Amino acid sequence: MGLLGSSSSSSLVAIILVLNVVVVCNGGKTSTFVRKVEKAQHMPLDSDVFRIPPGYNAPQQVHITQGDHVGKAVLVSWVTVNEPGSNTVIYWNENSKEKKQAEGKVTTYKFYNYTSGFIHHTTIINLKFNTKYYYVVGIGHTPRQFWFITPPEVGPDVPYTFGLIGDLGQSFDSNKTLTHYELNPQKGKTVLFVGDLSYADNDNVRWDTWGRFVERSVAYQPWIWTAGNHELDFNPKIGETEPFKPYTNRYHVPYKASNSTAPFWYSIKRASAYIIVLASYSAYGKYTPQYQWLEQELPKVNRTETPWLIVLMHSPWYNSYNYHYMEGETMRVMYEGWFVKYKVDVVFAGHVHAYERSERVSNVAYNVVNGICTPVKDQSAPVYITIGDGGNLEGLATNMTEPQPAYSAYREASFGHATFDIKNRTHAYYSWHRNQDGYAVEADSMWFFNRYWNSVDDSTNAQS
Amino acid sequence: MGLLGSSSSSSLVAIILVLNVVVVCNGGKTSTFVRKVEKAQHMPLDSDVFRIPPGYNAPQQVHITQGDHVGKAVLVSWVTVNEPGSNTVIYWNENSKEKKQAEGKVTTYKFYNYTSGFIHHTTIINLKFNTKYYYVVGIGHTPRQFWFITPPEVGPDVPYTFGLIGDLGQSFDSNKTLTHYELNPQKGKTVLFVGDLSYADNDNVRWDTWGRFVERSVAYQPWIWTAGNHELDFNPKIGETEPFKPYTNRYHVPYKASNSTAPFWYSIKRASAYIIVLASYSAYGKYTPQYQWLEQELPKVNRTETPWLIVLMHSPWYNSYNYHYMEGETMRVMYEGWFVKYKVDVVFAGHVHAYERSERVSNVAYNVVNGICTPVKDQSAPVYITIGDGGNLEGLATNMTEPQPAYSAYREASFGHATFDIKNRTHAYYSWHRNQDGYAVEADSMWFFNRYWNSVDDSTNAQS
Repeated sequence: MGLLGSSSSSSLVAIILVLNVVVVCNGGKTSTFVRKVEKAQHMPLDSDVFRIPPGYNAPQQVHITQGDHVGKAVLVSWVTVNEPGSNTVIYWNENSKEKKQAEGKVTTYKFYNYTSGFIHHTTIINLKFNTKYYYVVGIGHTPRQFWFITPPEVGPDVPYTFGLIGDLGQSFDSNKTLTHYELNPQKGKTVLFVGDLSYADNDNVRWDTWGRFVERSVAYQPWIWTAGNHELDFNPKIGETEPFKPYTNRYHVPYKASNSTAPFWYSIKRASAYIIVLASYSAYGKYTPQYQWLEQELPKVNRTETPWLIVLMHSPWYNSYNYHYMEGETMRVMYEGWFVKYKVDVVFAGHVHAYERSERVSNVAYNVVNGICTPVKDQSAPVYITIGDGGNLEGLATNMTEPQPAYSAYREASFGHATFDIKNRTHAYYSWHRNQDGYAVEADSMWFFNRYWNSVDDSTNAQS
Repeated sequence: MGLLGSSSSSSLVAIILVLNVVVVCNGGKTSTFVRKVEKAQHMPLDSDVFRIPPGYNAPQQVHITQGDHVGKAVLVSWVTVNEPGSNTVIYWNENSKEKKQAEGKVTTYKFYNYTSGFIHHTTIINLKFNTKYYYVVGIGHTPRQFWFITPPEVGPDVPYTFGLIGDLGQSFDSNKTLTHYELNPQKGKTVLFVGDLSYADNDNVRWDTWGRFVERSVAYQPWIWTAGNHELDFNPKIGETEPFKPYTNRYHVPYKASNSTAPFWYSIKRASAYIIVLASYSAYGKYTPQYQWLEQELPKVNRTETPWLIVLMHSPWYNSYNYHYMEGETMRVMYEGWFVKYKVDVVFAGHVHAYERSERVSNVAYNVVNGICTPVKDQSAPVYITIGDGGNLEGLATNMTEPQPAYSAYREASFGHATFDIKNRTHAYYSWHRNQDGYAVEADSMWFFNRYWNSVDDSTNAQS
């Protein structure tokens, strides 16, 4: 395959690349697509995307995520503001008139001078695979109805399309990103979210507005959560010293289902994918709970059942922007050997407010005294994708290391999102979409060959 | 100065070195002193060192540590087993008849099928510097009397002698180490303990026996605590998922006095030293609480007030034993640049059950693509000393990387302890003592030249 990528499914792709890519360094491609850089701002509090649903104690900020390890449960969360109200979720299979109900719990938290609304978390279990369900929350006051579709049963050749979003925030760019994701004809069914949700940054009202903003997507399809640095909300100056307090109260994940002991690292199976979520801001040294968990988790992945091994984290290990350069080194030196040993297919990270895709590289030969510390091409290594380009609050990262390092295959300082479209056990089609383009336009793309079933070179720069 | 070290204060030193050191590699010296290697064992429960003090509800496991940031407070802890009893400490200046009292708190914890005794923590404040105090705990039932001496007021030329002990455990070797420390004619006044206390490893009865074993020292002089991996006591299989539960209940430290938000990283000043304790098993990535704390802490160190900047951690950054090799890399890549920038004098670590002293080296030039990743001599860098040779439960680490790397100045697989004897703002005399020798014998030694006031080459291999 040639320089323009292995995607032959869309002639648009090739055209865009020709127009925008002129810099080919000793590394890969640095897109010359340039847009005006401006400090991002939160959308104003009275924006329509933040509208409070009408009605007494109406549930708001409705969001769902996978509720168990295999996709037969859905965790439904929402906030009421007038009074606790009911924790009940009423739900039914679209092909059935029988309504069932699930009960959950309600919690609140205080953060400095802010007191949260009543945050409800209810898990619906024993769902049928591949089935549309309707559900209602706000029982007793102002019911609101939504729906979701459960994934197909876990299996090696089950096609499934994931969306990728990171560092979303609630700026005007954030809204464009979300809209582009919603209107992308590839129709992502579940979002893998790589951290930095609301950029509330201690202003907890912005956790509420963010919850209302994304409801239009996350009430209907699960978003799989990863904790970023903006989830820390650690501020000793105002007496807030419990890391992740707003995040852990608002966003629950099914960590116990994978034997994790904390909500910052866990795994799920979904269709033909095994997804491991890691915590850039928890302890990961040897002997720590995260380390022990990951050490036991990786050998459990059965590639005959779930061929696609995907890892999510916030801080990228391979990043060639000056912004956050080398911040991921500390975790990389701890776990990279395992990623190569267990042939992780792809690692998605955020944090850097731009887009980058790496070659399959590893840097695991270093032994302190041998001087071998340069990333090398490695067909057992994952592709590392930085997708921290959701919109954020801090603007784009435009300052790149030069020349583009060999490990970097493609980089561009644009906002956008991506999709990872698994076709079967051997092939998945990945594409990245920038917000300036039409909804169907792919600004970067790659056919992924599964590392377990089809581990031949799939680099877009590979000579075929 | 020549090959045999800069210590001219004791002819014994030179003699020992001549007898034992024959291997001089491209690195430093690997001692050929060899002793029989055997699996260490806990001393039996009925050993006299574990004797329970007689009397109803008699306080046991009495231990003290510094109770504030400057040394005018002492934190007294003890355990009662029959009933909570009093939290009062009665204390008096040896030159005064006036008895004062301080009140504290009592706590208990459960761990699987174990319930702790009543653990008391009481801080005595507003003490005079450089003064002997007597104190009594067990008020109302079986009083027991101890004493301590407060440090001199913080100042740049105040002499002070620290003891260094790591990975002590409660084996027969542990008892030898503690005895050697107690009988060392250099008379350490405060122990800097670099982690791995009891090796209870979930058997919490061994936390109690350890507390009784070390009381003979730590009831009379403060031990400054660092958390090691054996403090984690993380065991999901028996439902124990709160890291550090026994340790944090039993061993309190004055972390709030240095604006830390957790007891695993903190600082104290003592005499002419500024001591920073870091946490190998907590999060240390950028943005984490420990990172933010250390970033703000290092610029606060005023070398005109406290010339000696000492860091304690459990997992060493420079270690040339195969045991735990490179485990410290993940923290090193995060913080080493700061240690060089702020000219840390010495870093003491444990974890590896042997002894090692490094040259002044750094490895901070790496930028992923430049291939520069070999430790180099650096007079702004600390000396790294591994002193995890207290006795432990797992035996000696005897397997070393070969050849000895250039960063390693001296290494020997023996049990022992060390002292760091600060003379004034420019000089400190360091010596390591192996348990097989007489109490006064120095098996390794070095004159430390202060990095701020006297930053010339102080390597024992330096050409003078």
